[in-house]
Amino acid sequence: MQLNFLTIIDVLGTFAFAVSGAFAAMDKKLDPLGVIILSFVTAIGGGTVRDLLLGNTPVTWLTNTTTITVILIGAAAALFFGSILKKLPTTLFIFDAVGLGLFTLIGIEKGNLHQLSAGVCIAVGTITACFGGVIRDVLLNNVPLIFKKEIYATACIAGGLVYYLLMQWPLNEMLAKTIAILLIVLIRVVAIKYKFSLPKFYK
Amino acid sequence: MQLNFLTIIDVLGTFAFAVSGAFAAMDKKLDPLGVIILSFVTAIGGGTVRDLLLGNTPVTWLTNTTTITVILIGAAAALFFGSILKKLPTTLFIFDAVGLGLFTLIGIEKGNLHQLSAGVCIAVGTITACFGGVIRDVLLNNVPLIFKKEIYATACIAGGLVYYLLMQWPLNEMLAKTIAILLIVLIRVVAIKYKFSLPKFYK
Amino acid sequence: MQLNFLTIIDVLGTFAFAVSGAFAAMDKKLDPLGVIILSFVTAIGGGTVRDLLLGNTPVTWLTNTTTITVILIGAAAALFFGSILKKLPTTLFIFDAVGLGLFTLIGIEKGNLHQLSAGVCIAVGTITACFGGVIRDVLLNNVPLIFKKEIYATACIAGGLVYYLLMQWPLNEMLAKTIAILLIVLIRVVAIKYKFSLPKFYK
Repeated sequence: MQLNFLTIIDVLGTFAFAVSGAFAAMDKKLDPLGVIILSFVTAIGGGTVRDLLLGNTPVTWLTNTTTITVILIGAAAALFFGSILKKLPTTLFIFDAVGLGLFTLIGIEKGNLHQLSAGVCIAVGTITACFGGVIRDVLLNNVPLIFKKEIYATACIAGGLVYYLLMQWPLNEMLAKTIAILLIVLIRVVAIKYKFSLPKFYK
Repeated sequence: MQLNFLTIIDVLGTFAFAVSGAFAAMDKKLDPLGVIILSFVTAIGGGTVRDLLLGNTPVTWLTNTTTITVILIGAAAALFFGSILKKLPTTLFIFDAVGLGLFTLIGIEKGNLHQLSAGVCIAVGTITACFGGVIRDVLLNNVPLIFKKEIYATACIAGGLVYYLLMQWPLNEMLAKTIAILLIVLIRVVAIKYKFSLPKFYK
Repeated sequence: MQLNFLTIIDVLGTFAFAVSGAFAAMDKKLDPLGVIILSFVTAIGGGTVRDLLLGNTPVTWLTNTTTITVILIGAAAALFFGSILKKLPTTLFIFDAVGLGLFTLIGIEKGNLHQLSAGVCIAVGTITACFGGVIRDVLLNNVPLIFKKEIYATACIAGGLVYYLLMQWPLNEMLAKTIAILLIVLIRVVAIKYKFSLPKFYK
């Protein structure tokens, strides 16, 4: 049950991030193979950094046919149906928000398996969710979006905190995770809709 | 025999990539130590990413005097005889193409040692061959060339496929590798000569 | 005693690099969370690359409350008292120079624990000291400073060489380390004051 839930959110998050990576690559006019590589990097980058830091090597996606297949499908969907997908103006954003929530909780779960403290687990979750996008932006020669414009890593941290708060109650873990994921998506939606960003309290 | 072949192509590929890294650094007017560092990063970057992903740590070049010596010779050759080498307009390109072919096959061999599937081994070979150049370009603040302009990673993938096809026959492995390497070099030469690139079939 | 000395220079170096990372992030107008992330990346980036290369995983800062606390204090100091700190024009520079010296010697010590040769230990020390700054510059979309403008990695290498020379004498190790650290700081101060840089002997 636990494993199934982990597998499902892994597949969904991987697909979402692969599409977002492909779109970013297509915006920079990369060739199709470059688009596929950016799909991979965005989808597995955060998890790979996490696994390297935790010493989980060889990294799992090397032998995970599901992950590889899902990423290729995501890249192909963006390449062949991208002009359709992009006409839906919120598509890229929703994919990204869902992936963000899903990957944060996967990262927290991996941190828990390593018996790390709650604060560090939230950091590991944030790395899992955000560093695929950071590597994508670095490869495409942009300052990573997450450092600059929007509530992004902040949403992951908030979702992580809420997850640990909910787990203080005798609450079903899957329910707590679902609430945390939805909260992360919600924060992203509200932040974009109302153009929230963290206040810069320095000059 | 097998080991010797691996050692020789390792030395040749390392030298080729060190020179190409040094040239890229000199184009950006780095100081001599920066040139040497870029030689190292380009030559060992792809293999290091591969070893980190596969969990082959400590990475081998830390204790491999041959590799370190070859890279320093490559950097010195570029620094002291670069003006001569650059007058031969195809020098940088041929070095790069040979390194590309050699490193792809080294990566595939390492993947085979980890008993990974053929598809993943080809990906590991492509990472070995291309990611030194990716890190070089990222450090020099360029969008990595391989994502954009030319048949590059494509050549590695094609060479890898041909290697696995040839191994279906009862063929000498060294011969199969040599053919695959030559094919990768050939694809690169043809792609540059006739300005081939992957068609962008999206808008 | 040895351990204490290592701990103290670790804390000082971490604080120095966290502040320098925060200042660099604030120069690029990152949001406060981005500033904190850049503080982390700058402070632990070099040590993390070293630990990944040496296979020291899980990396230690994940479970090191002291390091995390020191970085957060450094980031907060830069965010809240940055306008004061920046009025002292040499503040950022001195922090950076001290961190550079301290981290070089920590890296050399880790290399020695892995029984690597002196030359490789100096490289490991230089990576420890410089790669946090390299990752900082890559994330902020700059060509890493150390490759270009100033005597930087050169100072680390010189300090490392002097350390190994001093250890040929029956000298107290802590004294040898202190001298090497002070030398690195001195080289940086002299290089900046007199605008030294490595001669570009190529065209």
